Amino acid sequence: MESKTNDLLNLIKSRRSVRNFVYKKIDNQTIKEIVDCGRWAPSARNSQPWKLCIVSHPTVKRMIAENSKYGAIIESAYLNFVVFLDLERGYDRVKDILAIGAFIQNMLLAVHAKGLGAVWIGEILKNKEKVSEIFKLSPEKYELMGVLTVGLINESLEKKEERERRVLDEFTDWF
Amino acid sequence: MESKTNDLLNLIKSRRSVRNFVYKKIDNQTIKEIVDCGRWAPSARNSQPWKLCIVSHPTVKRMIAENSKYGAIIESAYLNFVVFLDLERGYDRVKDILAIGAFIQNMLLAVHAKGLGAVWIGEILKNKEKVSEIFKLSPEKYELMGVLTVGLINESLEKKEERERRVLDEFTDWF
Repeated sequence: MESKTNDLLNLIKSRRSVRNFVYKKIDNQTIKEIVDCGRWAPSARNSQPWKLCIVSHPTVKRMIAENSKYGAIIESAYLNFVVFLDLERGYDRVKDILAIGAFIQNMLLAVHAKGLGAVWIGEILKNKEKVSEIFKLSPEKYELMGVLTVGLINESLEKKEERERRVLDEFTDWF
Repeated sequence: MESKTNDLLNLIKSRRSVRNFVYKKIDNQTIKEIVDCGRWAPSARNSQPWKLCIVSHPTVKRMIAENSKYGAIIESAYLNFVVFLDLERGYDRVKDILAIGAFIQNMLLAVHAKGLGAVWIGEILKNKEKVSEIFKLSPEKYELMGVLTVGLINESLEKKEERERRVLDEFTDWF
């Protein structure tokens, strides 16, 4: 029990953004297991307001890439998870977006647990309507929340940078 | 490696909302380890736009409880995590709220990994300004995002309900 707990805590703390990939197929079973973790995220009233486009086709990835300054990363990863908020399933904007954050985080942790790498691209939201159009999704019904690029980590290019976070005391108060 | 991966996936999938608690102290080291997992959540531009009030004092819990129809749960849990968005640290509302969702999810998973239980209360957002006032936090600077009640699980009262989630095919498209 204690060691399983530590494994999870270490996994959460060791996850980092990965931007350099080796182009290698990820099998569908692995992809489904990652998405399955997203599926179990909590959401207010269990609304599960997520919609996910799973993209490995190079042409579609190129179309996504054209909408981001990080297009090279998007194209170099075998897989893109394109995450939308299903506006008709949702019922409260703040709570719906929080649920999408939990959905994304579960998938990022699953990617890491699988020994793969990912980076969460938010900058592409500046072109959210254009990305919706690629998938023939009406921007009135589906709002882009982010793109996760997922792939085999290129360890030689990926620098082991020190990640920085504020210390606990900086953002906590005890009562 | 494979078994560690499965442990993590099982942990993510077995987490559920817990609403029945045994009132028992949770030590500060455990609390810090849970919050530490929140701290390593990703955020756009690494803005880390979170602010957390950690509440175990019964009087303060009562004040929080008065703002929710789930007040009995809030008071019965040893611990309340009151999560705010730090509006001055944030820079893009959607991305900031997504990061708070990831922050909350990491803490919920850490709670579960520790063998404790939690429920994420969003309904209290209807009184978000009043909750900010309890902590003397200006609603212009800090916006309530949710309250997590955390405690030892009362297994005899906690019913093992079937949790429901949409199947993968219902919210995914492959390209």
